[in-house]
Amino acid sequence: MKVLVLMGSDSDYKTVEPGLKFFDEFNIEYQVRVCSAHRTPHIAADLAANAKSNGFRVIIAAAGKSAHLAGVIAAHTILPVIGIPVKTSDLGGMDSLLSTVQMPSGVPVATVAIDGGKNAAILAAQILALGSEDLSLKLEQFKRDMEQQVIQKDMEINKK
Amino acid sequence: MKVLVLMGSDSDYKTVEPGLKFFDEFNIEYQVRVCSAHRTPHIAADLAANAKSNGFRVIIAAAGKSAHLAGVIAAHTILPVIGIPVKTSDLGGMDSLLSTVQMPSGVPVATVAIDGGKNAAILAAQILALGSEDLSLKLEQFKRDMEQQVIQKDMEINKK
Amino acid sequence: MKVLVLMGSDSDYKTVEPGLKFFDEFNIEYQVRVCSAHRTPHIAADLAANAKSNGFRVIIAAAGKSAHLAGVIAAHTILPVIGIPVKTSDLGGMDSLLSTVQMPSGVPVATVAIDGGKNAAILAAQILALGSEDLSLKLEQFKRDMEQQVIQKDMEINKK
Amino acid sequence: MKVLVLMGSDSDYKTVEPGLKFFDEFNIEYQVRVCSAHRTPHIAADLAANAKSNGFRVIIAAAGKSAHLAGVIAAHTILPVIGIPVKTSDLGGMDSLLSTVQMPSGVPVATVAIDGGKNAAILAAQILALGSEDLSLKLEQFKRDMEQQVIQKDMEINKK
Amino acid sequence: MKVLVLMGSDSDYKTVEPGLKFFDEFNIEYQVRVCSAHRTPHIAADLAANAKSNGFRVIIAAAGKSAHLAGVIAAHTILPVIGIPVKTSDLGGMDSLLSTVQMPSGVPVATVAIDGGKNAAILAAQILALGSEDLSLKLEQFKRDMEQQVIQKDMEINKK
Amino acid sequence: MKVLVLMGSDSDYKTVEPGLKFFDEFNIEYQVRVCSAHRTPHIAADLAANAKSNGFRVIIAAAGKSAHLAGVIAAHTILPVIGIPVKTSDLGGMDSLLSTVQMPSGVPVATVAIDGGKNAAILAAQILALGSEDLSLKLEQFKRDMEQQVIQKDMEINKK
Amino acid sequence: MKVLVLMGSDSDYKTVEPGLKFFDEFNIEYQVRVCSAHRTPHIAADLAANAKSNGFRVIIAAAGKSAHLAGVIAAHTILPVIGIPVKTSDLGGMDSLLSTVQMPSGVPVATVAIDGGKNAAILAAQILALGSEDLSLKLEQFKRDMEQQVIQKDMEINKK
Amino acid sequence: MKVLVLMGSDSDYKTVEPGLKFFDEFNIEYQVRVCSAHRTPHIAADLAANAKSNGFRVIIAAAGKSAHLAGVIAAHTILPVIGIPVKTSDLGGMDSLLSTVQMPSGVPVATVAIDGGKNAAILAAQILALGSEDLSLKLEQFKRDMEQQVIQKDMEINKK
Repeated sequence: MKVLVLMGSDSDYKTVEPGLKFFDEFNIEYQVRVCSAHRTPHIAADLAANAKSNGFRVIIAAAGKSAHLAGVIAAHTILPVIGIPVKTSDLGGMDSLLSTVQMPSGVPVATVAIDGGKNAAILAAQILALGSEDLSLKLEQFKRDMEQQVIQKDMEINKK
Repeated sequence: MKVLVLMGSDSDYKTVEPGLKFFDEFNIEYQVRVCSAHRTPHIAADLAANAKSNGFRVIIAAAGKSAHLAGVIAAHTILPVIGIPVKTSDLGGMDSLLSTVQMPSGVPVATVAIDGGKNAAILAAQILALGSEDLSLKLEQFKRDMEQQVIQKDMEINKK
Repeated sequence: MKVLVLMGSDSDYKTVEPGLKFFDEFNIEYQVRVCSAHRTPHIAADLAANAKSNGFRVIIAAAGKSAHLAGVIAAHTILPVIGIPVKTSDLGGMDSLLSTVQMPSGVPVATVAIDGGKNAAILAAQILALGSEDLSLKLEQFKRDMEQQVIQKDMEINKK
Repeated sequence: MKVLVLMGSDSDYKTVEPGLKFFDEFNIEYQVRVCSAHRTPHIAADLAANAKSNGFRVIIAAAGKSAHLAGVIAAHTILPVIGIPVKTSDLGGMDSLLSTVQMPSGVPVATVAIDGGKNAAILAAQILALGSEDLSLKLEQFKRDMEQQVIQKDMEINKK
Repeated sequence: MKVLVLMGSDSDYKTVEPGLKFFDEFNIEYQVRVCSAHRTPHIAADLAANAKSNGFRVIIAAAGKSAHLAGVIAAHTILPVIGIPVKTSDLGGMDSLLSTVQMPSGVPVATVAIDGGKNAAILAAQILALGSEDLSLKLEQFKRDMEQQVIQKDMEINKK
Repeated sequence: MKVLVLMGSDSDYKTVEPGLKFFDEFNIEYQVRVCSAHRTPHIAADLAANAKSNGFRVIIAAAGKSAHLAGVIAAHTILPVIGIPVKTSDLGGMDSLLSTVQMPSGVPVATVAIDGGKNAAILAAQILALGSEDLSLKLEQFKRDMEQQVIQKDMEINKK
Repeated sequence: MKVLVLMGSDSDYKTVEPGLKFFDEFNIEYQVRVCSAHRTPHIAADLAANAKSNGFRVIIAAAGKSAHLAGVIAAHTILPVIGIPVKTSDLGGMDSLLSTVQMPSGVPVATVAIDGGKNAAILAAQILALGSEDLSLKLEQFKRDMEQQVIQKDMEINKK
Repeated sequence: MKVLVLMGSDSDYKTVEPGLKFFDEFNIEYQVRVCSAHRTPHIAADLAANAKSNGFRVIIAAAGKSAHLAGVIAAHTILPVIGIPVKTSDLGGMDSLLSTVQMPSGVPVATVAIDGGKNAAILAAQILALGSEDLSLKLEQFKRDMEQQVIQKDMEINKK
């Protein structure tokens, strides 16, 4: 197990799913858990506190509204914690974003864009790649593939 | 002890102080504690979990930025939790407000205005007054006094 | 009668309804009233002023846009007043939220999340539970049930 | 008496003062009162309800934060009510603005800019001028004077 | 002709329409014009400059985005100008609101809520009623009718 | 005369001043005028309408709050109009920015950053450089100088 | 080739399309390219750096979210760069707008409204018209046509 | 060299300085560079592209306003890039935050709080600690020290 992926609610699955697909394609091991900073605080604390000894190296936490999950997880571990603010139906995710990113000094959360599930996974891969030349090569290839896709789109748009 | 007053940082003291003065004037017992959702999560959890058995009836929590304290406290207790969003130097407290008030379903935080330390204390007193006719009478007097102060200001402004 | 539930308009019913269901499940007595700070100000004032003598112990007020209802009610009573900012079609409820939560010193409104009808009811129950061991036990069970639901979701997500 | 000028707090005096000076220069009668939607709701309601029979023709109400004063006044009268959102130290007056302007259908508040005390007075004068040719002439002169002041500034800037 | 109703674009018709119905019911004469601060600036200036001599007493201007119409109209007349910020698809109307309400000193716009077409008309009626006892009586009846509608809704909700 | 620089108020001079210095250094002719969309609308309209025939090629307009100046100028000319939103004391310039940039289709304003006086001038120079190889060379040198300044700062910071 | 139109993603095509139609109607040559500040940074840099020597005179860049494209392009050229902030599904385009318009001193981006594709094209035409009397005449006709369309709408609305 | 610390301007030094002190205390090697996405784009691109081969493992980038630096750096490297949004004088840093965090899919930036220089450094240390048991032990001690500091503040506040 390399990456622990936490969701504050199972309704956040659609937000993290693009990241899980990325992990599948990159053969990065992960475990998905539903746990809430407010409804299962002890489980959240235990998952975070034991993540390192359980072999995890990076934690991703997705939550919406007063999104406390990533911050609470970061309180219990020295592993890097990546926060995904989930879009909300009233404020568009501005509440989730500020709740996740504006962490007080001492306990950082590496925040990605609202609903940025795939970017959270890429960031996790970039961190893991520091210890894996193989993963580094895959990420470099991924960057080249993205470049090619844009070049392809560029060619197509000029055929219109 | 009736009210447990928590601050995420000792720099939040200026925010809660007007409320403590209100408690002193109303002879409402309270205890002030510094505890952080991110730096002392176990202490915060224990304070919350034991608050009821320790005789507290209401909890006030003040925090700024990604203000998780009130929400984390509410996760561990069925006591009413009043949250005070602390003003911030960059976003004016909008981050603290959204982090405190936009709690997901199941775990409410009774949020007052940004830097609303005195209002948090009055709200706590209103809750305690449900079980104390004496405190009810004091609050009714307090309301009349406020009314008189406005009337007094009204008279003064017309003398200008 | 324990809880007085006020709506600024009957269109706010969908916002308070989850809270009414919560009250039904918890056998908490309540009365629902439509009254407006702007269209029936005398009725609103009377409902608030007489709420305590009519046996109410907590008031919930839901309103949208320039949401004055909760504040106006709080002006006329020393009972705790819980405000629910209703989501708006243009600004998402940011107007309702700021109108409800940013109360001036002296007259607090215990504000919950935008469209947080259920949380308003839970907060009311937490306040009432200070005087009822039976209700306290129910709320503790409710917290355990929420925990179990998250644990259940956690198990299901890992079967996918 | 022509214009009733209400402030939610005497600290709002600096906001309305430029408007009072405007009234003095234009010989428009006014009365200034401190009254609060939350601390003296009965007085506010009575001032509004009796304003018309007391000879007032326009009401100006200045308030900050959850600025309910103008809306509450408008609930009790058919006179035009002009709302001045007062600048706040945390959110810059965005809370006051939304609380004042986003009135629900049926009860309008004529809202001017944050801290727009002078514009509130000019708007009141424009309304009163509908029944006074003398005041109309003065307002037309005022517009020409403003024009001349800008022309003067334009000349000065080109001398630099 | 009593009220001049201006729209920046014919797509704003849905915003002003509820106000026009209100005028029809109250037998208040009005004229609707499409004119743009940016596309027909001369026509807008002329309409404003001649409004008073053409017998208009109040002007309503609805516009969205960088909503300059109401302000530009107010520049050319001493008649009271009521601005309606039109809801926008991207920022919800916050752009229209700030463009309309934050007028610099000297040239006020009486701003109502985003898409507040009916309230603009009621405000216009309140201003016109200062010179018409008949219209005053109608507005007082309108207020009583609104009150009865809320009372009716209150009774219905308690039958559910 | 190449660039017409307009300010809604002489208090905006500090915002445009860095741009005027830039013009002086680049030997770009300009004329500064104070004119207001609301206080001198005819002068503003005339300045805009005659700018092209008076030999101007670009117009810069700086204004704050409900910043209509740039849009109103753009209504009267086919010259490129650059808008500078001026910082405001309450909303930081968000009102000026939205009033300037959110122009409806048909009448664009080339908006730069809040208080971006120097960037407005550089943009004007870039436009003028399309017709002047000499100015192009100066702008290319300016870009190289900026680069050198950053390189110099980079060297200094590493000596600390 | 006169105008280089860049999109950060082919999904931005719907935003720029109205501008391309405008160019077609005005016989303004353009080239559309998909290139990303983040996925094809070298291509973006090269397109910008060579734009002038390739005969382009104005660049339009449309991008959403952390919209860096226009700014990055402006870093590599002295040609005027027009930025179009693309509407986003969570924050409505406020993120794109601030990322595009708040450029630091030295490197301006001429920003138009969120999704302001047509206005970007008109602005480009206004810039190109400084060197083309023919294009100037077309733009003046375009302004008159817009005026006629509003006048037509005005006539139609009064037939309803 | 382990961490490459980039600033968009030397005025951002006060923002990153607390992080540099943290690195000094933790004996983490770093290099500070001033480079701008807009003024020295080639240098920024080269620094990023060569960072990995130059032995860097994490990059920190601080920038304000339209803060493109972190995103542009991330475009050129597969190393984890941590973005620090710098507080701005007009919008408080909301512009910097959205420009940094709302990165499109494929190129993540690990964003910390506005002016969160120390948290950026701690996050970098957490990433480096995945490959260093010694650094892990230091971070665990750091967490315990923070806890003790809060406990100490808690004791002091109760002596007041």
